[in-house]
Amino acid sequence: MAGRSNRVGGVEPRPPRRRPTIEDVARVAGVSRGTVSRVLNGGHWVGAAAAAAVDEAIKQTGYRINPHARNLATSRANSIAFLLTESHERLFEDPNFSALMRGAAEALAEHDLPLVLLMAGSDDEQRRATEFIMAGHVDGALLVSSHRGRQSFLSEFAAARVPVIACGVPLGFEKSIGYVEADDVDGARAMVDYLRSTGRSTIAHIAGPLDTSGGIGRLAGYREEHGDAFDERLVAQGDYSRASGFAAMKELLERMPHLDAVFAANDLMAAGAIDALVAAGRRVPDDVAVGGFDDSPVAQRTDPPLTTMRQPFDRISREMVRMLLDVRDGQRAARLTVPTELVVRESA
Amino acid sequence: MAGRSNRVGGVEPRPPRRRPTIEDVARVAGVSRGTVSRVLNGGHWVGAAAAAAVDEAIKQTGYRINPHARNLATSRANSIAFLLTESHERLFEDPNFSALMRGAAEALAEHDLPLVLLMAGSDDEQRRATEFIMAGHVDGALLVSSHRGRQSFLSEFAAARVPVIACGVPLGFEKSIGYVEADDVDGARAMVDYLRSTGRSTIAHIAGPLDTSGGIGRLAGYREEHGDAFDERLVAQGDYSRASGFAAMKELLERMPHLDAVFAANDLMAAGAIDALVAAGRRVPDDVAVGGFDDSPVAQRTDPPLTTMRQPFDRISREMVRMLLDVRDGQRAARLTVPTELVVRESA
Repeated sequence: MAGRSNRVGGVEPRPPRRRPTIEDVARVAGVSRGTVSRVLNGGHWVGAAAAAAVDEAIKQTGYRINPHARNLATSRANSIAFLLTESHERLFEDPNFSALMRGAAEALAEHDLPLVLLMAGSDDEQRRATEFIMAGHVDGALLVSSHRGRQSFLSEFAAARVPVIACGVPLGFEKSIGYVEADDVDGARAMVDYLRSTGRSTIAHIAGPLDTSGGIGRLAGYREEHGDAFDERLVAQGDYSRASGFAAMKELLERMPHLDAVFAANDLMAAGAIDALVAAGRRVPDDVAVGGFDDSPVAQRTDPPLTTMRQPFDRISREMVRMLLDVRDGQRAARLTVPTELVVRESA
Repeated sequence: MAGRSNRVGGVEPRPPRRRPTIEDVARVAGVSRGTVSRVLNGGHWVGAAAAAAVDEAIKQTGYRINPHARNLATSRANSIAFLLTESHERLFEDPNFSALMRGAAEALAEHDLPLVLLMAGSDDEQRRATEFIMAGHVDGALLVSSHRGRQSFLSEFAAARVPVIACGVPLGFEKSIGYVEADDVDGARAMVDYLRSTGRSTIAHIAGPLDTSGGIGRLAGYREEHGDAFDERLVAQGDYSRASGFAAMKELLERMPHLDAVFAANDLMAAGAIDALVAAGRRVPDDVAVGGFDDSPVAQRTDPPLTTMRQPFDRISREMVRMLLDVRDGQRAARLTVPTELVVRESA
């Protein structure tokens, strides 16, 4: 294309007197207005011959893009990413993610926006998802499950002012990125308080990952509720998976065989803990009471059904969408904490 | 912006003699080259003040976009859609979808392309997903689970030549859209043949949805294997869900209580059939043998574990990605049929 002139002058066969329009280009190229528009917007779904004809017609007519018009036409992608920094396994194992994804899709549908799921479990996936988002293919991102130190891409988003709302506190980015969180500390205190009210005295805790705000907050609530009586031998570490709850419960039973209750930081680990208790010959709740956190579908399928703290996932995803669209529309990001609720079933 | 001149002339304060470059625009606007580039590519992640400065600088310098350069820079989205025409429930209930999605993501990762999941279960979701794809935010789509009559959007893709590869035959679009399918007819025949070889004589079939190529093909194989002895009272209709397998099995037991085997068109319905048989006091496989189709993770969790036809989901998703990238790169779409394999466990 070297040597193409910037001047609209005598080289064109039919120089229009008025400013050339997109219709002029379409007429000269012998294509539809829509085809010209697609060429101008990046050439998607346009054959090579049609694209060449449009390019030639642009040259002939001296058509010049009005950047403001382009801006209006294309600055919005009209879609929102659901950016999940977890593995494929976790997406399909942990029903919290499907609940959040479904709630977000329904809330976005009210604004006629599609949800675009991007998996960012590995470093490479994060890089690709970040490039996709930075290229403007979405108008913002709902960030779900954020582990501290695994989210350097958030700096890029913050620097470029990409609208992002996190589910849970985005550790390290609390000031620059808005979020919606359940009240983890208060929920954990309520569960410990409930277990005590049923006569339990030695209450263990299976903690969630301590690089997540949920894991930190629920352990903090458990610890606060015990005050000076806090005994770290009653705490075992899990990673939110059912298998980790099983392993942590086994460890706790060996270390503190006289325990009479356990509070797991999520329902999946509580389900694993019940499996381990049954395998060890302990009755639930007669010998050991078990409390969970989430009220996910898992809680109704354990035997016995699980007493747990309900996270209002519908409300959380709806609020995340509302806040993200507010940020997209120019408002500064906010932080929202929603309460959890005790659901008593049969495990405690 | 009315009245903006197309001419590069004496109105600019500093008319450059050579053709103005993006660097000239950046210098005049007092912003980085990257910011100018982002304005030119749609204004993503650019503040209003910077965008206005760039627009003014474009006017002053007479900078004109080279459509070919833009084309090169932006005609590829560098991402591929995984377009699932199913509900959120089905995505999380049926492990086939997670297997296909995971395989596709891994195959795309080898090309450094992110997988973008778009749900298109409802008409509104289909419309939004179609708009997103037609706007050029992806370079093509892997179409998973296609129901006849629920895919008018495929006409749009075909007309605009959006690269699409379907999983299973895209009924009604066999000629225009490439696909990868399991050999459903042959797989069904192999299962019926196996059940017969173990001494079963009255083999029922729980059919999948007859607006899908899998449902049609597996019923056809079952029918072919029976020849003139085909008895339609031995066929009940399901929708691939576990609940529908339960209901179909109950219906078959009432209608044909002497049956001694059942072949379900997928593993989830086979699992539901086992539940119904157990509820009716029949032993599996002693009284009734049960065969499935898929070899999904469900097949290992039923009691007894399920004898089934294995669909090679890894291979199917890998081939879909390979064929889609071929189409993107200009090749004509092809059709690929891959064989299934009998996996004998304890249910038959």
